[in-house]
Amino acid sequence: MTTSSSIGQRVAGEALGTGFLVATVVGSGIMAERLAGGNVAIALLGNTIPTGAILVVLILALGPISGAHFNPAVSLVMGLTRALSWRDAWIYVLAQVVGGCLGTLAAHGMFDLPLFQLAGKLRTGPAQWFAEFVATFGLLMTILSVARFRIEAVPVAVGLYITAAYWFTASTSFANPAVTIARALTDTFAGIAPNHVLPFIVAQLAGALVGMVVIHWLLTGRAAARPEATLAHER
Amino acid sequence: MTTSSSIGQRVAGEALGTGFLVATVVGSGIMAERLAGGNVAIALLGNTIPTGAILVVLILALGPISGAHFNPAVSLVMGLTRALSWRDAWIYVLAQVVGGCLGTLAAHGMFDLPLFQLAGKLRTGPAQWFAEFVATFGLLMTILSVARFRIEAVPVAVGLYITAAYWFTASTSFANPAVTIARALTDTFAGIAPNHVLPFIVAQLAGALVGMVVIHWLLTGRAAARPEATLAHER
Amino acid sequence: MTTSSSIGQRVAGEALGTGFLVATVVGSGIMAERLAGGNVAIALLGNTIPTGAILVVLILALGPISGAHFNPAVSLVMGLTRALSWRDAWIYVLAQVVGGCLGTLAAHGMFDLPLFQLAGKLRTGPAQWFAEFVATFGLLMTILSVARFRIEAVPVAVGLYITAAYWFTASTSFANPAVTIARALTDTFAGIAPNHVLPFIVAQLAGALVGMVVIHWLLTGRAAARPEATLAHER
Amino acid sequence: MTTSSSIGQRVAGEALGTGFLVATVVGSGIMAERLAGGNVAIALLGNTIPTGAILVVLILALGPISGAHFNPAVSLVMGLTRALSWRDAWIYVLAQVVGGCLGTLAAHGMFDLPLFQLAGKLRTGPAQWFAEFVATFGLLMTILSVARFRIEAVPVAVGLYITAAYWFTASTSFANPAVTIARALTDTFAGIAPNHVLPFIVAQLAGALVGMVVIHWLLTGRAAARPEATLAHER
Repeated sequence: MTTSSSIGQRVAGEALGTGFLVATVVGSGIMAERLAGGNVAIALLGNTIPTGAILVVLILALGPISGAHFNPAVSLVMGLTRALSWRDAWIYVLAQVVGGCLGTLAAHGMFDLPLFQLAGKLRTGPAQWFAEFVATFGLLMTILSVARFRIEAVPVAVGLYITAAYWFTASTSFANPAVTIARALTDTFAGIAPNHVLPFIVAQLAGALVGMVVIHWLLTGRAAARPEATLAHER
Repeated sequence: MTTSSSIGQRVAGEALGTGFLVATVVGSGIMAERLAGGNVAIALLGNTIPTGAILVVLILALGPISGAHFNPAVSLVMGLTRALSWRDAWIYVLAQVVGGCLGTLAAHGMFDLPLFQLAGKLRTGPAQWFAEFVATFGLLMTILSVARFRIEAVPVAVGLYITAAYWFTASTSFANPAVTIARALTDTFAGIAPNHVLPFIVAQLAGALVGMVVIHWLLTGRAAARPEATLAHER
Repeated sequence: MTTSSSIGQRVAGEALGTGFLVATVVGSGIMAERLAGGNVAIALLGNTIPTGAILVVLILALGPISGAHFNPAVSLVMGLTRALSWRDAWIYVLAQVVGGCLGTLAAHGMFDLPLFQLAGKLRTGPAQWFAEFVATFGLLMTILSVARFRIEAVPVAVGLYITAAYWFTASTSFANPAVTIARALTDTFAGIAPNHVLPFIVAQLAGALVGMVVIHWLLTGRAAARPEATLAHER
Repeated sequence: MTTSSSIGQRVAGEALGTGFLVATVVGSGIMAERLAGGNVAIALLGNTIPTGAILVVLILALGPISGAHFNPAVSLVMGLTRALSWRDAWIYVLAQVVGGCLGTLAAHGMFDLPLFQLAGKLRTGPAQWFAEFVATFGLLMTILSVARFRIEAVPVAVGLYITAAYWFTASTSFANPAVTIARALTDTFAGIAPNHVLPFIVAQLAGALVGMVVIHWLLTGRAAARPEATLAHER
């Protein structure tokens, strides 16, 4: 019914979307911590609600252009399942990382903070890595299964999934390597110390892979609406 | 339009879904209590919003596979209404209990707590039992009626119902025997002392049965979209 | 596509729905005030979110049976616009008042409070009456206009409208004579002193009537999906 | 399928909608600040949730009549893209400003405050102007892209976008010249000192224009459901 978007448009969509996502995560974290008077649960509410909300919006707005991955774990799974060529998958990953880092800068700019920072917040240990594994497993389960059966519900499903995952994981569910890298560049509420980034990414990719395999089995034998193809360029 | 899922896939769907549900209930309770600085209303908000959110996600993602009961009270009502064979109903119940308990373990693992615990939190008395009766009655009303008239709205309806029920019941609305058992295995915000589990389950099953009868009468004479069959395997 | 519900079923739907609505308003108010440690904004959040959520659920579940008015101001407007016979409109009003009062009792039962109470909370003065006028005007605008153009969005629209109205009115937006009467029977967070009930109801009915006239003009000349007939029995 | 609304009806729709929007922003701000006991994050939650909710409602209810712009930045973009005649665009802007100011008065009336006030709250500086630029850029991205691909999701997308933007911008995302003017007339939580209004509006219009150009490029080559025409009168 429509022609598809060019690779330039799709890359711009991924960068813009990941940028807005990170700007929301980082910006709302700054706002929430500034205003919450030391009550971290209130700060996390003020961080969770905007993040869940913007995810719904960005997937609605940019999904039809780029597929709205905004997440290297998702793009790599799409590469593995042949829904995306490997060349495009790697371009997507690059766009997500660059866009995400620009999103951190934008948040700093909007809150009148030094643009370039390095996070000091420690997020490490097997419990947090296990949490990232579970969170990314669940994210892939959500995306792959809902895309198979009710593609139009993916934006709301992903937004609500992350809303929940902020609270059921000790790590507040990064579940996204590009966002993790971008969050190393802010010494605010949402930050993560740079030397703690790599294990998070490893745990996320492991969760994504296991999620892909489990959901693949769970959906075996069920007719598909070609979800992966659809996810790559939603329309 | 699709072939249906195998019993193995359906059982895995029930176990996975109930596990994620319980991990969210228990995990967000731990997170919320840790951060809320003693304000229990804020902690309950931080427990409610993730629970309602993950229910929408899980029913969207797993409903087409197993029907997304995640709740013995629902599966037994489906058995009574012949929407599910008794054999399958009991297998579902078992999967829900096992999956739920694994969900508690997963939450403990993510928050670096001892995996095996027993709850000390007292939840007892006729008022709380009455609350569980009302909460489960309302849950069955929601599921059976919305499934009859607008099957695609069931995920949102159930998520919002539990969001409300956390607050209008003194017991914070367990409304689910498998979740109740799983919550006996955590000595955190969401726990319930093991010796208080049985009366909760009795009240829940009574509420489910009365709800089934009342809604059955309320819907008599209205054309059905074969909701029970649909609920058993949503597609 | 379906036969319609009997008058007995419709009356039961109105009573059950108004009962659950009031039980949620009163019950979540009790829960929220108990837990909020004196912070009334947090208590109001804990009262708002469940109320908005249960409205979506109840309109989804019971709308196809009774039209899901749960509100004498709505039923009387439906009588005025001939969408409902006057006989049925008055029966609806009676069912709503009785159901609402039973909802208050249920909330008291669930929280182990004396069943029969009279509210002491003062809610009076021209500013609050004006707020009730505005709130009910907006409620009718929402119902009549959304029912005309997107009937399937009415449950979400009403739930979100009340979510907003709890906060933009000084009165926390009762906007419903049956709920107002039922809330006179509880000396808790949601209560209203009995002698302050009548002016609230007058303001609500005035707002509903003016809303009906204004929206009627606003929609003149636009093709209708026979919203009032639809609202009377949604399917 | 329907005849379209008259210019009088459309102007009334814009005024009524902008009025309710501002009454919600200002009213919930008053309520939230009064109750929050000095915790500004809680107050902002009590301001955010109602604002996002009422936007969904108003766009659902009035979109089919006037297009539900409620925002001069949107109407001017519609003028530039020829979706609206310039004459109508300017009439819309006037209706939005007048309606918005009446909304402020209504909020004051409902909370028993002096009707006519001037804000003392300082909101100025390049960081806040950049934030307004980003917020309005994102708003136009949301509206133009979602209207192109999933017109029925525009109400939810705009409501959730503003929910997020309240928190990711240092300015709490006015993103609307008419609302900015109306908020200069209240010396409460939502106020903005009159001499700080103009730079906010300049930043908003700049963000809207850049957003329009970027999204236009991003959507180039994709089949349209004539979004702009649709947005002008949604049905």
